[in-house]
Amino acid sequence: MNNAAVSVIGLGEMGRALADALITAGYCTTVWNRSAAKADDLAARGAVRATTVEEAVLASPLSIVCLLDYDVVDAILRPAAGALHGRTLVNLTNGTPDQARQTEAWAEDHGTAYLDGGIMAIPSTVATSQAFVLYSGQRAHFEAHKETLEVLGSAKYLGADAGIAALYDLALLSAMNVMFDGFFHSVAMATSHKEGNAVGFTELLVPWLTSMAQVMPAFAADVDSDAEPVLAQGLDVVLASVRNMAQASRDAGVRAEYFEQSAATLEKLLAEGLTAYTAPVVMRHLRTSS
Amino acid sequence: MNNAAVSVIGLGEMGRALADALITAGYCTTVWNRSAAKADDLAARGAVRATTVEEAVLASPLSIVCLLDYDVVDAILRPAAGALHGRTLVNLTNGTPDQARQTEAWAEDHGTAYLDGGIMAIPSTVATSQAFVLYSGQRAHFEAHKETLEVLGSAKYLGADAGIAALYDLALLSAMNVMFDGFFHSVAMATSHKEGNAVGFTELLVPWLTSMAQVMPAFAADVDSDAEPVLAQGLDVVLASVRNMAQASRDAGVRAEYFEQSAATLEKLLAEGLTAYTAPVVMRHLRTSS
Repeated sequence: MNNAAVSVIGLGEMGRALADALITAGYCTTVWNRSAAKADDLAARGAVRATTVEEAVLASPLSIVCLLDYDVVDAILRPAAGALHGRTLVNLTNGTPDQARQTEAWAEDHGTAYLDGGIMAIPSTVATSQAFVLYSGQRAHFEAHKETLEVLGSAKYLGADAGIAALYDLALLSAMNVMFDGFFHSVAMATSHKEGNAVGFTELLVPWLTSMAQVMPAFAADVDSDAEPVLAQGLDVVLASVRNMAQASRDAGVRAEYFEQSAATLEKLLAEGLTAYTAPVVMRHLRTSS
Repeated sequence: MNNAAVSVIGLGEMGRALADALITAGYCTTVWNRSAAKADDLAARGAVRATTVEEAVLASPLSIVCLLDYDVVDAILRPAAGALHGRTLVNLTNGTPDQARQTEAWAEDHGTAYLDGGIMAIPSTVATSQAFVLYSGQRAHFEAHKETLEVLGSAKYLGADAGIAALYDLALLSAMNVMFDGFFHSVAMATSHKEGNAVGFTELLVPWLTSMAQVMPAFAADVDSDAEPVLAQGLDVVLASVRNMAQASRDAGVRAEYFEQSAATLEKLLAEGLTAYTAPVVMRHLRTSS
């Protein structure tokens, strides 16, 4: 067993990108996938093919798992529990905080050091300066493998609760998911015009969103603070703007439900006597348990 | 009448920022607002107060209007129609494409040169390198006042149809609006954890969103092209991720309806036999009239 050996289990697009980065960095990389053909390119680049999950786990002190979901993780790892004893498992599968905590408990029951993580990259940006990976679990496990993990992208340790990496991961992914929904909606609006085109519109959109994202830290400070919010807009001004978005969407033949629902929410807040759109007002609305 | 004179009608936060930029650039700036107190600061900086809209319009060859909505524009400008004859009206009020076209028709009936526009800035970034303003209407009107308009932010002329600036404006604003909704949702998730805080989370979020926005031009190219889409993800992978976002939101005590509806949409697309999440697939879903 070689300390510079890593096994990668699950060779979807992301798993292949992870394995590729480790091979490039000179690690002795063992790979396994349910359908073996996914390993062909990696084997040609020097990866060792394992024929079973157990064989993959036994090949390295550290196994990195990246699969579709935690049900698949369970199905694939349970039969290899014996092999995992005394080794480290880093699970980069997208899942919920509770799933991360349950998997950590299962791993610990089997004498396996466990880290849960979330990859903040797309396959093509893995191992570039844009990529970062969130980790949580026992800090000692993170420190023991930090050098290897840094190969995949900047490694950020968030805390001992195995669930917090999944929470931040899903929160970041959800913000991206919503941003892309808004992107597609806006492109559908712009391209409804005979002179509109998606590429020209997006040349305006990307700097616009990038510039506006710079306002987020000030909103975040208002969320963390108990003082009077620094950023405030008139709820009536926001409502007028959202109603225009809904109307222009309908006129453009683009689904308007999202903005109709936003308008209804703003009307409800106005009816409750609120006048300012601030971060704490939005947070109170979003937190169902408060 | 001075060619370097501009009138600004409507002194909300944005109108005040516009007037302030013109004063700073050395323009003889006349201002009017329904409640006159909003002009106090600007008057102290050298702005001329008009006591009526008519007086404001007569003071300059160019009047810039920035009001709450087009109903207010109508109510305020109709009585000043005579004064507008032979002058130029630039309407930067947030409105729909149809409202822009109707206001242009009204202005032309009264011998007034009309441009419709949309300000892509917040009040604090007006007249900075981050600001740009979209214009549409007759190109000659734009060229005649381009130098003055450049004071407010980079001036982008989109076309002769008075409505296209409003369409692009609302499309850009809608993408921003949705991005901020996603931001607030993700902050609510992150701050549900006892170790979570909005400022620390946002330090991860802003570079993440900025980095991911760089993917938008490739999606846009797929929208404009009739060829096989370059970017494709498995619909099943996207659905698994969105379900996790919904579950993690519920577990965090944060409203999950948005992701529950997204999941339902993705399930519907899968049930229709689609397997890939691509820009054309999303566009077909969004366009109700296609």
